[in-house]
Order: sequence, then C-alpha cells, then structure tokens
Amino acid sequence: MALTLMDGNEAVAWGAFDAGCRFFAGYPITPATGIYSTMLRILPPAGGIVLQGEDEIASLGFCLGASMAGYKAMTATSGPGISLFSENISLAIGSEIPVVIVDVQRLGPSTGYATKGADGDIQFLRWGNSGGIPPIVLAPVDVADCYTLTIHAFNLAERFRTPVFVAPSKEIGMTRESVDFDRLVASRPAPVERLPNPSDSPYIPFRVAAGEDVPRFAPIGGETISRQTSSTHGEEGYITSDSSVISAQVARLYRKIEATVDEFSFYQADTADGSETLVITYGVTSRAARRACVELRAEGRSVSQLFLKTLWPVPETLIRNIAEPYRRILVVEANLGQYVREVEHVLKNKTVDFLGVMDGRLIEPVRIKEVLRE
Amino acid sequence: MALTLMDGNEAVAWGAFDAGCRFFAGYPITPATGIYSTMLRILPPAGGIVLQGEDEIASLGFCLGASMAGYKAMTATSGPGISLFSENISLAIGSEIPVVIVDVQRLGPSTGYATKGADGDIQFLRWGNSGGIPPIVLAPVDVADCYTLTIHAFNLAERFRTPVFVAPSKEIGMTRESVDFDRLVASRPAPVERLPNPSDSPYIPFRVAAGEDVPRFAPIGGETISRQTSSTHGEEGYITSDSSVISAQVARLYRKIEATVDEFSFYQADTADGSETLVITYGVTSRAARRACVELRAEGRSVSQLFLKTLWPVPETLIRNIAEPYRRILVVEANLGQYVREVEHVLKNKTVDFLGVMDGRLIEPVRIKEVLRE
Amino acid sequence: MALTLMDGNEAVAWGAFDAGCRFFAGYPITPATGIYSTMLRILPPAGGIVLQGEDEIASLGFCLGASMAGYKAMTATSGPGISLFSENISLAIGSEIPVVIVDVQRLGPSTGYATKGADGDIQFLRWGNSGGIPPIVLAPVDVADCYTLTIHAFNLAERFRTPVFVAPSKEIGMTRESVDFDRLVASRPAPVERLPNPSDSPYIPFRVAAGEDVPRFAPIGGETISRQTSSTHGEEGYITSDSSVISAQVARLYRKIEATVDEFSFYQADTADGSETLVITYGVTSRAARRACVELRAEGRSVSQLFLKTLWPVPETLIRNIAEPYRRILVVEANLGQYVREVEHVLKNKTVDFLGVMDGRLIEPVRIKEVLRE
Amino acid sequence: MALTLMDGNEAVAWGAFDAGCRFFAGYPITPATGIYSTMLRILPPAGGIVLQGEDEIASLGFCLGASMAGYKAMTATSGPGISLFSENISLAIGSEIPVVIVDVQRLGPSTGYATKGADGDIQFLRWGNSGGIPPIVLAPVDVADCYTLTIHAFNLAERFRTPVFVAPSKEIGMTRESVDFDRLVASRPAPVERLPNPSDSPYIPFRVAAGEDVPRFAPIGGETISRQTSSTHGEEGYITSDSSVISAQVARLYRKIEATVDEFSFYQADTADGSETLVITYGVTSRAARRACVELRAEGRSVSQLFLKTLWPVPETLIRNIAEPYRRILVVEANLGQYVREVEHVLKNKTVDFLGVMDGRLIEPVRIKEVLRE
Repeated sequence: MALTLMDGNEAVAWGAFDAGCRFFAGYPITPATGIYSTMLRILPPAGGIVLQGEDEIASLGFCLGASMAGYKAMTATSGPGISLFSENISLAIGSEIPVVIVDVQRLGPSTGYATKGADGDIQFLRWGNSGGIPPIVLAPVDVADCYTLTIHAFNLAERFRTPVFVAPSKEIGMTRESVDFDRLVASRPAPVERLPNPSDSPYIPFRVAAGEDVPRFAPIGGETISRQTSSTHGEEGYITSDSSVISAQVARLYRKIEATVDEFSFYQADTADGSETLVITYGVTSRAARRACVELRAEGRSVSQLFLKTLWPVPETLIRNIAEPYRRILVVEANLGQYVREVEHVLKNKTVDFLGVMDGRLIEPVRIKEVLRE
Repeated sequence: MALTLMDGNEAVAWGAFDAGCRFFAGYPITPATGIYSTMLRILPPAGGIVLQGEDEIASLGFCLGASMAGYKAMTATSGPGISLFSENISLAIGSEIPVVIVDVQRLGPSTGYATKGADGDIQFLRWGNSGGIPPIVLAPVDVADCYTLTIHAFNLAERFRTPVFVAPSKEIGMTRESVDFDRLVASRPAPVERLPNPSDSPYIPFRVAAGEDVPRFAPIGGETISRQTSSTHGEEGYITSDSSVISAQVARLYRKIEATVDEFSFYQADTADGSETLVITYGVTSRAARRACVELRAEGRSVSQLFLKTLWPVPETLIRNIAEPYRRILVVEANLGQYVREVEHVLKNKTVDFLGVMDGRLIEPVRIKEVLRE
Repeated sequence: MALTLMDGNEAVAWGAFDAGCRFFAGYPITPATGIYSTMLRILPPAGGIVLQGEDEIASLGFCLGASMAGYKAMTATSGPGISLFSENISLAIGSEIPVVIVDVQRLGPSTGYATKGADGDIQFLRWGNSGGIPPIVLAPVDVADCYTLTIHAFNLAERFRTPVFVAPSKEIGMTRESVDFDRLVASRPAPVERLPNPSDSPYIPFRVAAGEDVPRFAPIGGETISRQTSSTHGEEGYITSDSSVISAQVARLYRKIEATVDEFSFYQADTADGSETLVITYGVTSRAARRACVELRAEGRSVSQLFLKTLWPVPETLIRNIAEPYRRILVVEANLGQYVREVEHVLKNKTVDFLGVMDGRLIEPVRIKEVLRE
Repeated sequence: MALTLMDGNEAVAWGAFDAGCRFFAGYPITPATGIYSTMLRILPPAGGIVLQGEDEIASLGFCLGASMAGYKAMTATSGPGISLFSENISLAIGSEIPVVIVDVQRLGPSTGYATKGADGDIQFLRWGNSGGIPPIVLAPVDVADCYTLTIHAFNLAERFRTPVFVAPSKEIGMTRESVDFDRLVASRPAPVERLPNPSDSPYIPFRVAAGEDVPRFAPIGGETISRQTSSTHGEEGYITSDSSVISAQVARLYRKIEATVDEFSFYQADTADGSETLVITYGVTSRAARRACVELRAEGRSVSQLFLKTLWPVPETLIRNIAEPYRRILVVEANLGQYVREVEHVLKNKTVDFLGVMDGRLIEPVRIKEVLRE
C-alpha cells in the first residue's frame, strides 16, 4: 500500500477523469480553483478540453453545450459562482442535459470570509432554480469520497440526464490527506454511459421507451437531428402549451430522480449496540462526529452515526431504516439548520436535536460531545 | 364607491409609489414588464428614477446602490430573471440593504411556456442565495393585495434592512380586476422609514443599539462615512475572520427576521363551525379554493380556509393556531409540492394532504372539491 | 477679475452643464474620472441624471437612449474605454443621434502607462467606426478651451445630430490652472437646441426639409412616433436595401459634416511678420510650441504658430489660408505622426516637417526649438 | 486540372489550416460565419480547437490566450464585431501577440443592410486601436487570394508578432467561384514559425537579439517563465514609466512593420504599353476594374491596372514604382474615399481621381469605364 498526499480538489478531478469526463469549463474562484488547475494538467494530454469562460455563466453554458454534443462535462465553483448558475441549471433540468457541478462551499452570506468553509449551500443546491424540480446532490466526507462520489455523480448525470452536484466544503477541497489512491482506483465504480438511440428506430428527442425513465440520447451535431428548447416541450422537442404534455413531462422529471433514490443512497453508518442516540451528519462535519463518538465510546457511552453522502433527493428509506432503533437523533451541520429540516420531515415521530455553527471554523468534536452528553 | 379596472402589476407599482419608492431599475420580461412600464409612467413626474439595466444583474445592482444611498428601491422580474439575482440577494442580506423584489412567477422549469403562470419559485425565493440566511416573502391573492402587500414589503425592508420579495403569479400580475382603489388607498399601511443614526452619537455602520435588532442607517455619499462590504464584517463594517463576531452577526441576521414573523404574518382566514378540514393555500390558487368552499358549503359541507400572505419566514404560530381545531389539512399549490413541506413541518401531528398541479393552467375549483370530497 | 483654480476635467463638466447637458453616464477610468465626479456633484441638484453603467458599452448606450429621448447627453473615458465605443459610435452616426464623448487621452498602446498622456487617439477618433463616416473632433489646448469647446461640442452635436468628441490629453484633464472663469462664462457661446418638427407638419423621422441638412427631431417616447434603426434606412426610418436611398443617406451623412466645417473651424493663430516657418500643433503640445516661439523670438528668430482646435473634419480652408505665406511647416504631435498626415494632404506643395514623441512625457519647448533652428 | 467550387470563407479557412492554424474562436455573424463553420468542420479532426466565445470580446481574447500559449490562432467577424475588438487589438499590438483577424466587410454604418458588402473598414482596420501603432492588413481579390493571403497573414503574424487582418468583403466571402484548388495548394507559401528562444541563452521576454526586429518567443505555461502586460514595458516584461524605454519600444513596434513592408507588398499589376492612366483598386472592386480594362482595350483604349493586396502598411515603394510612368491615377473603392487618401499621399505630384460608391451594390465595370473615358 502506497499512500498519496492529495487534496479533495485533486481527487474530484481524478474522479471526473476516471468517470470519462473530457470537458471542463470554469472560472477561477478559491477554494475551487484546484479542480480547474488539476483538470488543466490532466485533461488536454488525454485529448480532453479545458476552458476558462468569460465568467461563470459562460462556463456552465460551455459545459451544457459540450454535454449536448456528447461529452461528459464538469464545472467547479463556490457559492458566489453557484449564484450565477441558476438559469443554466434550470435549462439543464428541463432539457435533461447531463452535467456535473462541483460546489466547494465557502462561508456566506455573499462573499463571506474568503475563504473559510461552511455547508451553507445545502438548500440552495436543491432549490436554486426556477420551477423547483429536483437535481441530485452528493456530499463527500473526505478525499476518498471526492474521488468516488465524483464518479458516481457522472454516472447519475448520464443515467438520469440531469445536473448532479458534488458539494464538499473548502475544508475538504483544500486540505491534503494521505490516501491509498491505488486501492481507491481499483475499487472505483464502473463508468455509466448515456444510452444512445437504437439504430433501428427513428429518433424522437424526448420520447421515453417502455420500461425506461429517461429519453435516449443523440448528440447535437451528429447524424441524427436532435432538438433542444428551454421551453416546455413534448416528446418531439418542440415547444408546447398542451397542459397534459407539460404535466406528464414535469411529473417525469420529478419521478426519474425521486423514485429512484434508493438506487443511489450513498452513506456510511457506524452503529453501536445499545446506543440511544444516532448522530446524522454529512460533509467534513462527519469527521468531527466520528471523533466525538470514538471518544465517547472510550468513556463508555454508546453512540451511533450516520454519514449521509446522498443529500438530494432525500434518501428517506435509508434514513428511516437506519434511524428506526434510536430514540434520539442529533443532526450536526456547518450552517444554522438546513438539512435538519429534511431529517425532521422524515422522522416526524422522533426527537430531532440540532447542533449548527456558522462562524468560519470547523465544528470541533468537543462541541458535539457536549451536546451528546446532555 | 368607484371601481377601477387594474391589473396586479399596476397595483404593485402604485403600492410601491405610495410606500415611498422613488427608484426602480429593471429589465423587461413578460409577465413582469407591466410593473416597469407603470413605474416609468408614475415615478419620473414625481422626481423618482426609473432605469433599465444592461441586464438583470445590473438592474438589481442599481437598486442596491440606490438603497445604500437612501432611496426606497424596487426591481421586478420573473423566474429567469430571479435566476440571475442570487449574488446580489446574498449581498443585500449580508450587508443589510433594504430592497423590494417582485417575482411575477411564470411556469418553469427554465423558460417554461412563456408565459403561463405557476408558483414554482416558492422555495427558490427562500433558498436562492449562498449561505441560507432567510429573506421575507409575501404572496398576494389578488390585485388589492398587490397594492397593500407591496407597501408592507417596503415597510418590512426598511424596518429589517433586508430584501423582501413580493411573489404574485402571472395570473395575478397580468389580469385586470375591478377594485375599489380609493378605499384601498384610504386604508393603506403607513409608510415606515429607515431609522437614521441619532445625531448625537458617532456612527458605527453595523452596531445595533440596545433594544433594537438592526443597525441604524446612514446613506453612502452622505455626511457620515458609511462602510459596506460583501464579506463577513463586524460592527465597524470592516472584513473580519473573528469567529465570535461572524457568529453573532449571522445569528442576528436570522433572528431579526425569524423571531419577529408574528409581527407580519399576513393572512386571511374563513373558518366555518364544525368543519373538519382546513384548506391552506396562497397566491391565485386561494381564489379557486374560496370558490370550492363556497360551492361545498352550498352543498352542506363545512370547509374552512386559510390564505397565507406571508410565506417566509414561515408564520408557524399563525398556522398552528388556526389549524389547531382541524383534523385534516389540505394544502393546494400551483407546483408539485413546495410550501406543503413547511406546513407538514409545522403541523407534524396532523394529516396533511396535498393537491398540486404544474401544467400551465390555473387549478380549477372542481379539482379542489374532488379532493375535499374524498 | 477673480481667478479660479480648475482642471480640464472640471472645466469640461461645467461646459457641458452650461451647454444644457442634463444626462451623463460613464464608467470610471483615470484620467477621465474627474469629469464623472464633477457631473455627479453638479447635475443632480439641477434635476439632471448621472449614471454609472455596468461598463463603457452600457454607458454610451445609456447616453444614446437619453439623447433619443431629448436629453443633451455626454460620456467621458480614455483610450481603453474608447476602444469599447465603436459599435455605439457607428449607431449614433448612422441614426443621427447627438452625443458628446470626451476622450481624455492617455499613453497607449493598450493600457500604456496609467496614466501618462499622449495624443494617441487622433486617427482612432476619426476612423474608429465601421463604415468610415466622419464624426467631429475638437481638441482643447488648455482649461479654458475645455470649457468653451465642450459647449461648442454640444452645439455641433445638436446642430448636426452626430457624435462630437472632445479630446484633451491627461495633461490637460488632470492639471489645475488658474483661469478667469467668470470671464469665460460671460463670453460663452449661446446654446444651440435641436430643431423640433414644426407642429403643423407630419413627422417623417429622417426627412430633411428643403434648405436644411439634417432631419428635424422628435423624442422617442413623445407624442409623435419616432423610429430608429441601426440599419440603413430611408426617410421613414424603416430598413431599406434600395441603393439609391442608401447612397443618398450616406452621402448626406458625409456632406452635413464635411461641407460645413468652415463654420466651426476653431483655432488660434499667432503669426509674425517675416517668419518663414509655421508651427502647427493642437492639444497640450501647443503650449510647448508657444513657449518655444516666444523664446525664439527673444533670440530674434521669427516663427508663426497655428493651434488647431477643430481636428475633424480637417479644416482644409483654414489650414490652407493660414499656411499660405509660409515656406516651411512644422507639425508637432504627442504621437508618432497622426495628424501630420492630414496637414501633408492639405499642403501638398509645401515642405512639412514633423516632430513627434510618444514616451509618456510632454514635449518640451527645447526640443521644438532645436527642430526650428535646423 | 480539377476545379473546385468554393467560396472565400472556405478558402480562408483552408488557408488558415495549411498555415498551421489550430485554434479558432469566434462569434457568428453573417457574412463571416462560413469561416467559423468550416473551421469547425476541419480543425477538430486534426486535433485543433474551435470555440464560440460568449461574444466577440471573449472570442478575440481566447485567440490571444491561445497564441500566447503557442498556437497559431484566428478569429473572423464583420464590421459590428470588429467594433468590439479594439481593446484586444491594442493589447496584441503592444504585447506583440501574433493573431489573424478576418473582417468580412459588410455595409455600414452601424449594422448597415445585413448583409450587403462594401470596403468600409479600410481605415478602421488601420486606426481602430488606442495609440495608433500600425497592424498589417491584406485584402484578397478573389477566392484564390483568400487562401493564399491567409497563409501569408499567418506567416506575417508569426514573423512580426503582430495582429494581421485579412479583409475580404461579403461579396468575396460568400460567393462561390470555381478554383483550381490543387494548384493553389501546390504553390502555397511555406509556413513560417515563431522563432523560439535559443536553448543556450536565458529568456528575456521582450529582448530583441542583434540583427533581429522582434523578440523571440516562449509560450505562456511552458518551461520558461514568460511575462506579458498590457502596459508599457521594458525587455523584461515589467511595467515601466522610463521614457527612454517606452520610446524605444514604441519606435520598434512601428519600425518592425513599416520598415519591412517591401518584403510583403502583395499585388497584381497589368500594365499596357502607352497607357496614360493607372487604375488602382483592391478587393472585389478589382474585378470590375479588370473587366472595364478588358472592354476598354477592346475599344482600343490602353489602360493599366494595379491591384493592391497589401493595404497596410502602405506599400509606398511599390505604388511609387508602378505608378511612375502614368500621368493620371484613378482609385476605385467600395466606400466614399478611404484608401485614396493614402495613394494621394504617396503620389503627391500626380493627378489622383477617385470613384467611390457605398450603396450596397458592387461597383459595375460600366461606371469605371465612364470615368476612364472622361
């Protein structure tokens, strides 16, 4: 076993590469720039394309164009850049354009203190588009997750033709850890490819075949004519105001994501016999929680943990199943209460406590222990 | 009583005017353009300023600048424009800049079918900024509300130094109704003005006096030096990474809005003795609900209604108090389930049913009746 | 006589004000920012409007819009900003929109050394638009000229419905001189107003009445419908591909400026009996030339001078008349030879020598004397 | 001999390709879009890059970046796009960045009649940058020239590290001609490559070796540190205000282009014994002139012709030598008199007549014959 020293941004870039990503466009912003610079180093020698857009709007626009032409595409930014993405995210959702967007979160509001981290964009990533249709959001806990979840992100983007977010915080993106990278690579998920239209059938851009939940793909600029519009459209890809068509299309956009979440509910659980409390966390905070649990167990207190790595759609079945035995739930977040709302929603009949901090610092294990001792 | 024929956009403009708004900057988009054109007609003759920005980003930027200089300022757009506002909204929240933003909602995702309405931005308005700090969102039911709630919006923006959204849908903004405008004007809320710094004390831009919850105001460019930064800052307005300062500032930004919502929980309730079900709605859908209830009562069925006009922060006390007697709650929305999440959260122990439609059409009373009859 | 200490930028602003300018939009750039800040101080209290655009393109765009609505409008920038104006200049020329543009020239190429001056844009101002149709360019020698020529610039813009440039260099714009401002104001040119359409005749936007050389004006947004297009158009303001119409329109755009230059050939001449050489200069270099001539005369050498203040269209008659008696012409410019080309063109049969410098410094009198002694 | 049917835009693209161009960025505009679409077809399969920028500013910016990284880069647009290039052209001149810019001219002013052609940008291409330092401008007469001159343009850009314009009009760019393309390719100029820094000497970005006139090149991002600034700079590439350094740098920028024009004075001459008149033209107008001369010769009148293909710097020696025997010169241009100014300047002692048209139509041979018969 040879350990590599690598930060989360590099791991995201290598994950993208190993997922088959060959197009990256971005605009520099600390703490996400490391992804850009790594892509710049590794993509072009492999025949890939790396671009700096005139701004964040252009960068995501380039990615959508590249994706429509058949590339696996990614961009990366932080909160102030995510703030410029909503229009294109909504386009990607409505027109079913696969794309991976990395949000290396920093402290808000606004530019916050550049650059200290926090998980301030958790609801923004879910709701930051007009219309309210859900994207997928994955949250890594460490550098290894940055690699593996980025591959999953591409696979989900291709599988469901949707934008998928990867949402580390600055503390993961810019901190180097030693990681057994060879092992990570050896056990990586197999890449998933967009399903092309069968060659023996005519191409209807947004028609969904029986037994499938997303339309087949034909690249813009290819032999087959493909059609895209930012407007409500029917199977043919033409704008429509037919309410039954709109209704069916919108319902399918919800269903393809929300009804399938059990297939991609990534998590890590560490349950201990006899413990009454389950700590639910995500992101870098999970590591403080892990440490707190280890220390409490050393003191003889039994505490269980669930680290969520799929945040959206909410993995309700997963949360419900794992939380079932526990009397008390503690959600810990690097914000003033975002994902706890979802946990409360899923676990209506349980006591859900919350510890949240948003002051530019990591939540320390000692603070979690204090709450758990209460 | 003389009735006037007026649409919601005109009513918003007159509400703004009567609230003391003298600055409007916008970029045209159906269905919000009527607000722009009305402001263009009424503001300049009164010494006010109306500007078209180069785009939506510039438009809201102009408003923030005008507000910092002491103007009551407003912009108006629809979903695709709101999609470009996040960066400036986050700035306004973090730097406590009063501004009123009207979102005449149309059908998404993306450009949807321009222009059919829906209430697709309800969660976007709450969460569409980096950091997750709450703004205020008001939702009119009709043209009269457009007038009155816009005045409230300005009053709240000034009172709490925060962005306030007014969120009609296209069906309210662009539909003319007969309204007793003279009576509306006669009973309008009194304008609230930003509190200036007392002349006998030095000005510390973000210091909050004892017993107050927002800092006093001094205009940029005035005699007193004021300071603004998009970064985390202390009382003096200088950037800081001091976690106790950041923590206190962020907590206050939450508290000033969330702890005071009982002061501005606008609503309309129509409760009937003996009814088991409470229909909760907002926006234009309320009018279909009202019609459904009238018809059901004519059939001898007792149904009660609550029309929420303050959506964010969630008026929890209000909802809890009014819902208390009812066994069943039905939330009806012109989307696939956005605000129902909040109602479920507040009313954990009740059965909350949901009827949502997002197909470009108004929800008809008959559909609500069908669900209520179940 | 009371002297005022004033720099060229302030004088430009006051000239604009006294010419009736009530609209200014700009984007800050040293060495032109003083015009912006002065306008900001004096225009709003008089009911005028001052705007910062999102960039230089928006700023000039705002000015054109304001002008089309009837305002006398001005913007001010330097070389890098002028570099973004070409599209709108071409629009203003083709659509006959009056506007005054101040170019406080600094050293190029590109950003040069910010901020040292030079007269590097002299040909750029003439030719920096697609199609090659001429604007008017005036060049002040000192602060007094900044005031007076700016008034002339507005008068010419209104009279000929065309963009007019005022082109000081950084050395004039940002240098304070003592000036008898009261006398300047007392002897200022009377403001010229755009000629409106006679009330008794229908309005044809681009029709030129008999005996006139530009069409009458009706403001956009006024009672009369006006039409503008950036395309080739006939009298009615509709796009046309009729070659005879295009030909007549283009010819008129040339003629109205070039055939009338004798009406506005501003200059200052200091001729001495018996001198064989005429020094032709413009801008701040004129002052070095003046000093050189004074010193040479003290030595007993007779030299004459012509300071051109109208640069474009080339005041050929003026140059020819004044230069007639001289055997030798010396053109001195703060660039490597721009306007000397025009002088050579007009004075084909004379010896035209040239002294040009472009190194960030003012041309010193001693260098001019050296050349004159040759 | 196999003839190919090809338009000027395609020929430009193939010329670029055969010159070694592997980077193209542009923004679509008729009549230049054919270059973009052809590059899109031929460059990527050869490992080249084709990009659409967010606008013209970004497009040329991309090209400059690519060029600084070592690519041979090209963009193509028309007048309204050229109008957005000045800032980047000035940067390319001052920082000595090779780039080829194609201006497929259409009728101005402003958008003119899209799309009819004219040669309206001839002075704009020379003077459309702040500072007045000259670029190189080549003008093709036909499709074959589009191919060959584009190769020359790249060679000159690389040789002199400067922007080079290729300036056909719409009538050449969008008109298909039959051309013996194999022969053209067989006789094409050999590609010229940027001279790298010798490996045995340290790299000083703007130092010019003895006997050379431009600095050697090292790519940005390569092993050697290179430096660029848009400001005045010395050999080291750092900003400087040292007037002797600035003066030397600016003088060299002029000299490297103007003193070498005899090396690249492209032209075609058809002189006839005994003719008194020489017709000087360029661009598509040359073809009408050729036809006029043929017809006049058939009538027994002897007329000579000179088609200039290098317009800037003005090939003075060439013009002077060829024009020497003629009493009368006629310049014909598709504008109202732009290049005739240069001819008059060079041939001060000759009668220079002018025929110019700018009405959206080609100049017909019959009109030229009329003038020649006078």
